[in-house]
Order: sequence, then structure tokens, then C-alpha cells
Amino acid sequence: MDFITEPMEIERRSMEIIAPHLSELHLDEAETKVYSRIIHAAGDVEYAPLIRIHPDAIRAAQEAFRSGRNIYTDVEMVRTGINKQKLSAFGGEVKCLIADENVAEMAKAEGITRSMAAMRTFGRELDGSIVAIGNAPTALFEVLRMAEEEGICPAVVVGIPVGFVGAADSKALLAQNGRIPYITVEGTKGGSPIAAAAVNAMLYML
Amino acid sequence: MDFITEPMEIERRSMEIIAPHLSELHLDEAETKVYSRIIHAAGDVEYAPLIRIHPDAIRAAQEAFRSGRNIYTDVEMVRTGINKQKLSAFGGEVKCLIADENVAEMAKAEGITRSMAAMRTFGRELDGSIVAIGNAPTALFEVLRMAEEEGICPAVVVGIPVGFVGAADSKALLAQNGRIPYITVEGTKGGSPIAAAAVNAMLYML
Repeated sequence: MDFITEPMEIERRSMEIIAPHLSELHLDEAETKVYSRIIHAAGDVEYAPLIRIHPDAIRAAQEAFRSGRNIYTDVEMVRTGINKQKLSAFGGEVKCLIADENVAEMAKAEGITRSMAAMRTFGRELDGSIVAIGNAPTALFEVLRMAEEEGICPAVVVGIPVGFVGAADSKALLAQNGRIPYITVEGTKGGSPIAAAAVNAMLYML
Repeated sequence: MDFITEPMEIERRSMEIIAPHLSELHLDEAETKVYSRIIHAAGDVEYAPLIRIHPDAIRAAQEAFRSGRNIYTDVEMVRTGINKQKLSAFGGEVKCLIADENVAEMAKAEGITRSMAAMRTFGRELDGSIVAIGNAPTALFEVLRMAEEEGICPAVVVGIPVGFVGAADSKALLAQNGRIPYITVEGTKGGSPIAAAAVNAMLYML
């Protein structure tokens, strides 16, 4: 068994392997870092043509980080995956209400998912913040509804829910929204490590 | 925006979409559940031909769960993704040492990754237990070394690390090991939600 055990070397080698898959996408340096970290987290170069980054998304996220804004996630796995040490250096926290008792009660009472109820509970806290969704299409639909109907406007939405029911539609709707800068992935693929990777890529550039 | 918000209905519909992709794989009912939950977690039907389940793996994992054995994970995201309520009903816990200070010191002193040092620290605790690796190939290489050199023998290894450096090799080695039943995915794809999904699929059948 002969293998690389030095973390920085593993990462460097990985980015080297990913690079040729990005060469025809005309990405700037910051976009390249977000793409690379997403592909690294998925172990899947087929993400390359599916990633969508709004032109203002990275700058908006980084301004929000620097201003000490919080990150709001749909599930605990996204919270776990985000580099909280780096974020807290600016004063921000990662918040997730999926396991909250009141949220569970609201979900039951209204016949919605817990992640929808969690986003609804955050409400105006989302204004100017970073939203990171890695699991639940319903959470993303809810954030887009809140933007449309209540004028709630996060600085950026990293919306990369996963699955065969609603995920692709919710992400298409995010990419069509005319108000909020976003990072997303077309289609059914995605997940918590993918959303966390996009957030971390932007944090690591600061 | 018209979308399904009832969690059981989302899951039922998702499994229905996945089913045709499994029809030619000749899976039994338990295997079908593990495959489906992995594909569901990845939003990626191309996992179907890449999943490998040792014939004894599901039975061995379920016996270990029922006996109150612990699950040992390489990273916190895998721990977060596992249904701990279901596991604790049998007396088991999910353990992860990636953030442990002594593990960090050992990793630094020996020039190995923290997840390798974590597995080495667990040592004989892994005998008869469930190991779930969703991120670090080096953790999987280390468990296989411990099995080979020290005769440490988990009941089952869910080994689905992700990435371009070492992941595919570590998973091939796991599938070739003659001692420990395993669940894995060929190639570079994988990740924490994938490993957690395989574990949860087996827990949910109990």
C-alpha cells in the first residue's frame, strides 16, 4: 500500500487532475476555485458543465462573510461541512433549525417539510445573509417564495439540493430568479458536501 | 410553484424513479434498499453499476447493530448523516475522532492524515464494529492495514471515500480484501452522505 498521506499534497494533486476538465469553461480565478472544490467534493468531473455561478455571487458572498453575516443551512450536514473557524473569524455563525422542536411542530401543523418550516422561521434574518441548501428542494422553493412574496433578499443563495423529486426544478427556478445572486448545479445531482464545498471555496479565498 | 411537500411522498416517488435503474442488477430486497438509498443521496443513477455489496455485508451489519455495536466514522459529516436515534435504540453510538486534539498531535508527529490517526487510535475497538468512511481514502487504507497487520476485524466496512487521489485505489483494495464484508462504490465518486445512506438503509430495515 503506497499512497499520499500529506493533506496539502493530496489537495494539490487533486486540483491538478481537475484542472483540464475546466479548461474550456472560460472561468476566472475565483470561479475556478469554486468549481474545483465542488468537483473535488463529489469526486465527479461531470459536475463541470452543470455548475452555474451568477456573476455577482462570489463577490456578494465574500462581502457578506466580511461583514460578519451568518450562514443559514437547510440540514445539519451542511452546517457540519462548513469551515466554522474561518467564518467565525469574521463574526459569522452557521445556523440550522432542522432539529428545532418548534420547527417540527410548525411542519406538522402546516403539512410542510421541516426544512421549509426552518427557512420560514428564519424569516427576515435571511436578508443580506448567506443561505446554503444541500439537501432539501423544499427549503429552496421556500426561500424563493419568501423572496417573491415577502421581499426577503439574502446576499447569496448556494442552492444545491439533491434528488429526483423537486431538486432540478428548484435549482432551475433559482437560476431564473432575477433578484438573488446564486451558485447552483443543474439537474438531480448535489448534496450537503457540494453546498459546503462551494461555501468553503469562497471562505478560503478571504 | 407547485411541488410535493410531504416527506414520505417525496421518498416514495424518488424510489419509484430509481427502481428501473436497478431492474437488471438482480438485487435482493435488502440490496435494493441499500442501492436505492445511495442513489437517492447522490441524485445520481450512474451509481447503480458501481455499487459493490459483499454477500455477507448487510447481515453482518445488522447483527452488529442489534448487538449494540458502535459505528466508527472518518469525519463528522458521516456521523451527522447517520440516524443516531435508530442506532441508540440498540445501544450503539457513532464515534468520530477527527476533531480530537490527541489525534491531531499524532497526525502531525507521524506525518499522516488526521483520519488515519483517528482510525489507529480506535484500534481494537473496531473489532466486530461497523466502520463507515465517507471522505478520506487514507482512513480506509489505514483500516485495511490494521486488518492485515494487526488482525483487527470490523463486522463490516462501509468504505465510500471520495476523490481523485487514492479513493478509487482504497476502494478496490477493500473489495479485494478476503476478510471483512464491505459496501463500496467503484471509482472516484462517493462522499459522506453516500456512506451515511448505506448505513441508514441497513438500520431502517431493522
